[in-house]
Amino acid sequence: MNYARRVRALLAALETHDLDALLVTHLPNIRYLCGFTGSAGALVLSARGARFFTDGRYTAQAQEEVLGADISVMRKAPFMAAAEWLSRISLRSRMWRVGVDGEHMTLAEHTRLAKFLPRRIRLKQAPPLVEQARMIKDVDELARLRRAVHVGSSLFDTLLRRIRPGVREIEVARAIEARARKAGAEAMSFETIIASGKRSAMPHGAASGLPIPARAFVVCDFGVILDGYCSDMTRTVYVGRVPAKARAFYNAVREAQQAALDTVRPGVQVSKVDRAARKVLHNARLERYFTHSTGHGVGLEIHESPRVAAGQQEVLRPGMVITVEPGAYVPGRWGVRIEDMVVVTREGCDVLTPTPKDLIAI
Amino acid sequence: MNYARRVRALLAALETHDLDALLVTHLPNIRYLCGFTGSAGALVLSARGARFFTDGRYTAQAQEEVLGADISVMRKAPFMAAAEWLSRISLRSRMWRVGVDGEHMTLAEHTRLAKFLPRRIRLKQAPPLVEQARMIKDVDELARLRRAVHVGSSLFDTLLRRIRPGVREIEVARAIEARARKAGAEAMSFETIIASGKRSAMPHGAASGLPIPARAFVVCDFGVILDGYCSDMTRTVYVGRVPAKARAFYNAVREAQQAALDTVRPGVQVSKVDRAARKVLHNARLERYFTHSTGHGVGLEIHESPRVAAGQQEVLRPGMVITVEPGAYVPGRWGVRIEDMVVVTREGCDVLTPTPKDLIAI
Repeated sequence: MNYARRVRALLAALETHDLDALLVTHLPNIRYLCGFTGSAGALVLSARGARFFTDGRYTAQAQEEVLGADISVMRKAPFMAAAEWLSRISLRSRMWRVGVDGEHMTLAEHTRLAKFLPRRIRLKQAPPLVEQARMIKDVDELARLRRAVHVGSSLFDTLLRRIRPGVREIEVARAIEARARKAGAEAMSFETIIASGKRSAMPHGAASGLPIPARAFVVCDFGVILDGYCSDMTRTVYVGRVPAKARAFYNAVREAQQAALDTVRPGVQVSKVDRAARKVLHNARLERYFTHSTGHGVGLEIHESPRVAAGQQEVLRPGMVITVEPGAYVPGRWGVRIEDMVVVTREGCDVLTPTPKDLIAI
Repeated sequence: MNYARRVRALLAALETHDLDALLVTHLPNIRYLCGFTGSAGALVLSARGARFFTDGRYTAQAQEEVLGADISVMRKAPFMAAAEWLSRISLRSRMWRVGVDGEHMTLAEHTRLAKFLPRRIRLKQAPPLVEQARMIKDVDELARLRRAVHVGSSLFDTLLRRIRPGVREIEVARAIEARARKAGAEAMSFETIIASGKRSAMPHGAASGLPIPARAFVVCDFGVILDGYCSDMTRTVYVGRVPAKARAFYNAVREAQQAALDTVRPGVQVSKVDRAARKVLHNARLERYFTHSTGHGVGLEIHESPRVAAGQQEVLRPGMVITVEPGAYVPGRWGVRIEDMVVVTREGCDVLTPTPKDLIAI
């Protein structure tokens, strides 16, 4: 990972936004900029480069992991240690503008910080500069994401072998989680969703202790974390012989997903991807059952920028990695979702998830 | 779980703090007050009782889980839906004081909220009222915590069977995690720490791909989540015949842990528990290697109030559940930590973790 290049890009963004320094407190942003994976840290970017703050628990780990930033280990909350340092390095200035990340700094932290800092330091809610940089994945990140997607999709075979009427959803989830561990995953990237029968109408139905019924959809949404990067995919299968109505319902979602995929290329506004999926479901009279947005960025976090949703104005650029995951959910009856991860390329997009999407009857 | 009683207690606290309403946005607090376990929600407490807001993904789940609160499913961010409702119910008032939780609300959320709300509504950073209530566990919670501790400590046998020189730390971690799943755990309550040899000097050394060396301490810190409640325990074992110096080092930490446990009873300030551990390590000339605090509350979250640390003024009360976990870490050499969970009783305390603490040589 080329941390130095990332820091340089951020420093350039600071100048553009007329900031003297940026206080980075969100852990995935810190990891992105200097490699630290622990749970207590703060990073200051300024003309002096990058300086990382942590506490005594992380002395050894910081020395092992952090690249491209100076390290300070202090006996206090890292962001207060960073504040002290900001006070020191700004001593000779009349006025210093320090950007903070309003989406991640809490109100209470901001209050403490503002009380502590000398008056010459002005805290400014900066735009999400690190998140904006993280939207475009570099070569190292794409390689890791591809590996995560590969391991994630390899779990689908296990899934197909385990799903049977009478088997509890949680057993299926455990089976793929054990398999993920064996394949080297650090963890699942979110709580595995195995939602069968009526529960398939819950878009976020984490695997329960209930048995999978016969003649039912099973929505399976899962992902792994490998080397810090997340995968995310959904497939919906049918247990039993597929009735025509179920097949039509499934195919509508599948067409919606394909229509959305077909719009993904550089220069396209993300809201257009969302609209493409919604249009297909509208024509199938299912639009009102599509109750969430079409997708989201994926990387160090399972949900990152951009949001692929109505009203979002972000424009797709090469290197962005997003999910495309329309679904339809009829409460009390059934639900279907189909999700791939795709990377935006120079010409269009590359669907990373290799798993087929024809409806599988078990 | 008696959600109605919890809501009543909070409503009384609102009156004490001269608040007309409380906007609860931290998910564990929402779960505590109404049972919702999903990832998008907001709860408003006011003279009208409790009203829970979520989005379309959670319609079915909210109906299944939420007790003691009215449910509104809206097509917008739950905390903005809550803001709209606050505007409506405050219509006939001249001034309405709404408490928000500064420790969990972000600066950006606060800005959006303040912009949206009519002027009659004043946002106030409230004290952490829900966290304060959560410190004292009720009967239902204690039962769940005991079960979580029971399952957690049952993993220690697996650990002992797996730890051998040459076995990779991560294999040990995976073995206990698989066992935890079989025992019904929803998840581990944090990333399992298996830190052997020099890595034992990292207090937060998550299991790595490195093999466990011979003649080395292995710090094992792990816990499970069962029915939403967390367990947390640490044992340190030695691989090989134990040298006298290692034994003395271990025993100093063990004495420190016992001294801290001996102080736990109602009416005692938490800082005194911390001081008791530190004093023993001071006498053994190890105080400077004890680089973290002595413990923390445990419940729906793995780290809750109170913090058991120097300078903390919270006073122990019956029903509090805390960890007692002093350690000593000599960088580049070795480290030891011993941790139990205890509940404060009327007379003193009850150590929940049943696992023995004599040094085990493997």
